[in-house]
Amino acid sequence: MSDVKRVVLAFSGGLDTSVILKWLQQTYQCEVVTFTADLGQGEELEPARAKAKLMGVPDHHIFIDDLREEFVKDYVFPMMRGNALYEGLYLLGTSIARPLIAKRQIEIARAVGADAVSHGATGKGNDQVRFELGYYGLAPDIRVIAPWREWDLTSRTRLIEFAEAHQIPIPRDKRGESPFSTDANLLHTSSEGKVLEDPWEEVPDYVYSRTVNPEDAPDQPEIITIDFERGDGVALNGEGMSPATLLTALNELGRKHGIGRLDLVENRFVGMKSRGMYETPGGTIYHLAHRGIEQITLDRGAAHLKDELAPRYAELIYNGFWFSPEREMLQAAIDHSQEKVTGTVRLKLYKGGVHVIGRKSPYTLYSEKVVTFEDDAGAYDQRDAAGFIKLNALRLRLLGRRDGR
Amino acid sequence: MSDVKRVVLAFSGGLDTSVILKWLQQTYQCEVVTFTADLGQGEELEPARAKAKLMGVPDHHIFIDDLREEFVKDYVFPMMRGNALYEGLYLLGTSIARPLIAKRQIEIARAVGADAVSHGATGKGNDQVRFELGYYGLAPDIRVIAPWREWDLTSRTRLIEFAEAHQIPIPRDKRGESPFSTDANLLHTSSEGKVLEDPWEEVPDYVYSRTVNPEDAPDQPEIITIDFERGDGVALNGEGMSPATLLTALNELGRKHGIGRLDLVENRFVGMKSRGMYETPGGTIYHLAHRGIEQITLDRGAAHLKDELAPRYAELIYNGFWFSPEREMLQAAIDHSQEKVTGTVRLKLYKGGVHVIGRKSPYTLYSEKVVTFEDDAGAYDQRDAAGFIKLNALRLRLLGRRDGR
Amino acid sequence: MSDVKRVVLAFSGGLDTSVILKWLQQTYQCEVVTFTADLGQGEELEPARAKAKLMGVPDHHIFIDDLREEFVKDYVFPMMRGNALYEGLYLLGTSIARPLIAKRQIEIARAVGADAVSHGATGKGNDQVRFELGYYGLAPDIRVIAPWREWDLTSRTRLIEFAEAHQIPIPRDKRGESPFSTDANLLHTSSEGKVLEDPWEEVPDYVYSRTVNPEDAPDQPEIITIDFERGDGVALNGEGMSPATLLTALNELGRKHGIGRLDLVENRFVGMKSRGMYETPGGTIYHLAHRGIEQITLDRGAAHLKDELAPRYAELIYNGFWFSPEREMLQAAIDHSQEKVTGTVRLKLYKGGVHVIGRKSPYTLYSEKVVTFEDDAGAYDQRDAAGFIKLNALRLRLLGRRDGR
Amino acid sequence: MSDVKRVVLAFSGGLDTSVILKWLQQTYQCEVVTFTADLGQGEELEPARAKAKLMGVPDHHIFIDDLREEFVKDYVFPMMRGNALYEGLYLLGTSIARPLIAKRQIEIARAVGADAVSHGATGKGNDQVRFELGYYGLAPDIRVIAPWREWDLTSRTRLIEFAEAHQIPIPRDKRGESPFSTDANLLHTSSEGKVLEDPWEEVPDYVYSRTVNPEDAPDQPEIITIDFERGDGVALNGEGMSPATLLTALNELGRKHGIGRLDLVENRFVGMKSRGMYETPGGTIYHLAHRGIEQITLDRGAAHLKDELAPRYAELIYNGFWFSPEREMLQAAIDHSQEKVTGTVRLKLYKGGVHVIGRKSPYTLYSEKVVTFEDDAGAYDQRDAAGFIKLNALRLRLLGRRDGR
Repeated sequence: MSDVKRVVLAFSGGLDTSVILKWLQQTYQCEVVTFTADLGQGEELEPARAKAKLMGVPDHHIFIDDLREEFVKDYVFPMMRGNALYEGLYLLGTSIARPLIAKRQIEIARAVGADAVSHGATGKGNDQVRFELGYYGLAPDIRVIAPWREWDLTSRTRLIEFAEAHQIPIPRDKRGESPFSTDANLLHTSSEGKVLEDPWEEVPDYVYSRTVNPEDAPDQPEIITIDFERGDGVALNGEGMSPATLLTALNELGRKHGIGRLDLVENRFVGMKSRGMYETPGGTIYHLAHRGIEQITLDRGAAHLKDELAPRYAELIYNGFWFSPEREMLQAAIDHSQEKVTGTVRLKLYKGGVHVIGRKSPYTLYSEKVVTFEDDAGAYDQRDAAGFIKLNALRLRLLGRRDGR
Repeated sequence: MSDVKRVVLAFSGGLDTSVILKWLQQTYQCEVVTFTADLGQGEELEPARAKAKLMGVPDHHIFIDDLREEFVKDYVFPMMRGNALYEGLYLLGTSIARPLIAKRQIEIARAVGADAVSHGATGKGNDQVRFELGYYGLAPDIRVIAPWREWDLTSRTRLIEFAEAHQIPIPRDKRGESPFSTDANLLHTSSEGKVLEDPWEEVPDYVYSRTVNPEDAPDQPEIITIDFERGDGVALNGEGMSPATLLTALNELGRKHGIGRLDLVENRFVGMKSRGMYETPGGTIYHLAHRGIEQITLDRGAAHLKDELAPRYAELIYNGFWFSPEREMLQAAIDHSQEKVTGTVRLKLYKGGVHVIGRKSPYTLYSEKVVTFEDDAGAYDQRDAAGFIKLNALRLRLLGRRDGR
Repeated sequence: MSDVKRVVLAFSGGLDTSVILKWLQQTYQCEVVTFTADLGQGEELEPARAKAKLMGVPDHHIFIDDLREEFVKDYVFPMMRGNALYEGLYLLGTSIARPLIAKRQIEIARAVGADAVSHGATGKGNDQVRFELGYYGLAPDIRVIAPWREWDLTSRTRLIEFAEAHQIPIPRDKRGESPFSTDANLLHTSSEGKVLEDPWEEVPDYVYSRTVNPEDAPDQPEIITIDFERGDGVALNGEGMSPATLLTALNELGRKHGIGRLDLVENRFVGMKSRGMYETPGGTIYHLAHRGIEQITLDRGAAHLKDELAPRYAELIYNGFWFSPEREMLQAAIDHSQEKVTGTVRLKLYKGGVHVIGRKSPYTLYSEKVVTFEDDAGAYDQRDAAGFIKLNALRLRLLGRRDGR
Repeated sequence: MSDVKRVVLAFSGGLDTSVILKWLQQTYQCEVVTFTADLGQGEELEPARAKAKLMGVPDHHIFIDDLREEFVKDYVFPMMRGNALYEGLYLLGTSIARPLIAKRQIEIARAVGADAVSHGATGKGNDQVRFELGYYGLAPDIRVIAPWREWDLTSRTRLIEFAEAHQIPIPRDKRGESPFSTDANLLHTSSEGKVLEDPWEEVPDYVYSRTVNPEDAPDQPEIITIDFERGDGVALNGEGMSPATLLTALNELGRKHGIGRLDLVENRFVGMKSRGMYETPGGTIYHLAHRGIEQITLDRGAAHLKDELAPRYAELIYNGFWFSPEREMLQAAIDHSQEKVTGTVRLKLYKGGVHVIGRKSPYTLYSEKVVTFEDDAGAYDQRDAAGFIKLNALRLRLLGRRDGR
């Protein structure tokens, strides 16, 4: 008899989580409740239901939820308000999905009276950390089972053997070694492992699934507009859209124009470097558009403070600290800045590139009258600059007198 | 009689600084020493000599210096080590040239016994601040003359009238209003004003001068390599090059592939927003290549600290504080991190895009053995992750117990 | 005829602002509206009314407001939530009062239809900046008159002459040179100038006015408690008090025990160093008590983020940017952290020292069970520490293998 | 047969590390090399030699090193240059000693050909992390044995039994439960545990060992001076001293005047809060003196950057990352600022308080001429302040026009 009675498993329906389902039942002699989320990964979810049933999970313990709107509205958009880029380049597509999965899993655990949760993330990656920090933050006393850190199915061969021994269907393409592994949701697809492991070798084209090769993208640029309200996207080309609808539409545009491919060697929270390939088609467009609208609506003080906080904010999300007081504090600061981040950005999409070519806003802080080279009718007295420079220089002059140069 | 005896003027030989030269002579009844720097702006400098002579500057008071190598080696490259981007996007091409001009001007002032320096920057811009903070920091008691803040030539018409009245040659294309103003050096060309003043309107194609339109760039991507040693570029496609030679070669590549165009609304230090267009062809390639080599050679702790310091560092350069203790402190931190930033980056250039597609280094910190999904022969014990997560979660669990969620 | 019709003057009733009142009337031929605030500076305010009347200000243009509660509740306490210390030591007593005065002055200007505001701060100090950034932020088009930067009363003698010539009463002790100048409010008294100008010389005892010399303080320590709710003090020794009442009571305790004296050489925003003496009796106690209650109620992530933001936050307040987006963003982050900062702190006051000796809270995050050396019944598994250390060390090991040492 | 052949143990000679010595010999059947450091903890070290011999450690495997000068010069002073305070208050006395012990242990391991190192830190504390991050950073492939995380001697009783069973001498006062545990070195003594575990209860007076109770300190204040050169203390009252001699002398002064007691609830790196008592008598004086000399010798830009970096720097030291690239980068920045931090600070010590009352320097940046209220002969033009304020206000005015208030 095990001390675990009922466990909620984050269940994709794929081979690995199917094996985990069975392994949990067997190892812990416990009920397994499955939770499958539609985060826009672009896969059918009903097969997951069938598989769960096949392994004896009763209907009322199979949870399949469409979380796409919640994902974009409460996770992707808030993060985008912060212009978060991990290590200067990565739009955090995987990182930002994990807290939502963890949160829903805990909600289900409470609803069904489960005493444990489980996930299929491996022991070398960041996702185990993100899932489990989410679990523990939301349900401090929950039992967490991480099969990849516990079991002895440490090679592909043994995993397949276990699956065969337990009548778990094995997709043909999973028999052999997969040349890379992927994670996908509405924001991005990531790939890593095997063929990507030499950071000197170019990522083979077949690894990309969400975007055309820029070289195959249309020869004509496409001009679009995105409307923002209070820091969040609300319309594409003037047509109002819900968060997930907007991101989906931007993904389609990004795919077509080969936008958002990133080949990165990054530093994992668990301490090693890994090489990954990311495709963030719509997110890349959105990120730059958001910067574009901020350019005319954010005050310099707010903008620079945001820029200084952004690396830390991104690191917190990457490391799995979405549900932490410090991430929430930074979010409070970021959100405070977004009240007037409203207006329209015009962008040109072309052959892998996104170029902001125009922005306007009812709340613009840009003033032609002040900035013009021409006579500005007293909006700005050039003589003020002399005093401004003199006082900014004062400490440097005192220093120069002391130190010479 | 004026209290200024001899003034060193940053003199381009163009209409504006020619007018200033004459105006200084007339207004201050003083000797004017001209200083013209070759920073790679791509203009002939000898005409400047002729013009200075024409206005009576004696040969030994005409200084024309080729500062290209010093510019790239001591200013551009150190800045690039810091991955500096102002407001997330701008590579600081104008900002980084000003301190060098100021420094050389002060050296000349000392050499010729001048008591003042002067420049042609306007009273609304950042450059006046950058020049003058440089002057004051290096020569605290120097007299600074900023004609644009002092004189009454406040319209184009009056400037032209003054020129005509004093036999200053007026280039045909300067008679009318220029549709925009530009600044250029080896790192970039910037344009602003007039036709660019509505941030909703796309920058007209004729404003660009350093790059082809991406749509007109070659249909075939080009693969290049850049070698780095201790954080600085040393070779292109395996061929060793001096700093300025390397940047010049990258500029040529960038021009050809339409790389490095940026349309930006930025916040000036003097308090207003302005809209500018930047072309940084070689610098854009170099910046991304430097990030690429850092990805495998920098430790996470160093990399993240650099990322957190970068916005502040960029702001200091933008605001004109190159010669300040705090910029130097940040530089000391940045430079300390670059000792092993040595290796080769492979990049693909295509239609305005720069894509890092490979990096290798004798000092790589990337370890396939550690990161692999496969059995890693004990390089990493997955069980360690459990403890790592547990202790990272401890404070969140205590918090969760207190607060619920 | 002047272009100023009606000006609201921040009027203390002292000699300087009396001279300013007259000078404004004379120079601008305008109506002067006086505003005198009770911020707890400990002076009678009615004499200010009499003086204003004497110089012809009609009753309905004399404003005397008791702002003590607003000052503590909306300015001092929010700042204390951020543990703000300028340059590591200064509790910002002058800086935090200026925005409130500016705000009220603008309100009055609007109420009486004034087109200008004026203040008595000198041209070398920080206060002119703080007042005027406040004015401009709240009323962008207001006219600001800063007599000390405009007039020719540049020596004490001429000021006195002007006063005599205009029948302005001169207090006996103002005839000669004052040995130092002071500013006071409920939070602190500052002194600077003259006898304090040599930073090697000890501040003479007669400069202190708010505290006894620690050497003359009671030989017996006094134990007190302060209760906090959501980050703000609410009770002293168990007795509920309004913000200003609490600070007043703490000031009395601080005075008695010689607490809160600070001799500081600080860096002014206008670029020079100055030497000041501060007495912040109650504020010093409060600041340490607030840190004490945070120690058990704030999570580490929140606490460390606050510590990292605090120097910037303090700098903003010191420099006069209270009414700026970036100060408000930081405040939003800080305030977000204070929800559970509730509980009681016990302190010992003795001979200039404040010592936190106990803290308790219904929301404490401190857990004896977890921290104990004894068997903790499974609250913490020491084995977890091994994995925690191993993964934190991983990057350092990879680095050590590369670099040796 | 064990896989460990020779282990270097950080050996104090006390009961715990004696038990560890024996346990290592027994459990791993290995040679134990003892290393005992004199860091100024104030204990005889020769008894450690005798104990080691008694347990069979040969003479040439007993290392007893006086590291006091190295400790202060290369660890305490560099840290003090950074004004490091953990959580605003703690001077990091324990944290800063660990890296030196780790470093020396690794040196010895190399010298004697040991394959492992061991320490006596418990599994709940920070010290295990600090030791082991040091070991791994300096010797990535070293084997680390942490007995407190491995063995089954989990209660005092069992530890005593083990000692008795193995003829390990047990000091009389170690038989019972110790009411608290301590760590001491030249910088500080810390105490925690048992009687300190309720953070509401005052620390009993008998816990303090390095300082008199302020109430028992002399009734007369004592005035001292400390001289600094390039950021480091070099003399007390004009008498030149080595680093360790200076700190020892300051400790004596601090002890006499009851200086440097701190009662703190802090956040451990391993995730829980703990309550500790610290006595840092000389370090407290030194820290404030260093701030004092910086006040007149550091430029504002440098000073504020240091203040912003200090919390992170302190956190790195607290968490055990002394030997990390990011700590070294920060140190490079800090050290760059200290070149002119030279001069003399005068301090008053009284009843637990340290008060800077004067500072002077050949490199002072403080200028009476500039700061004076009096006529300054043109050192500063008050009219400059108008332009300075106007341009600082410009963005706020544009914002105010947009947003109203």
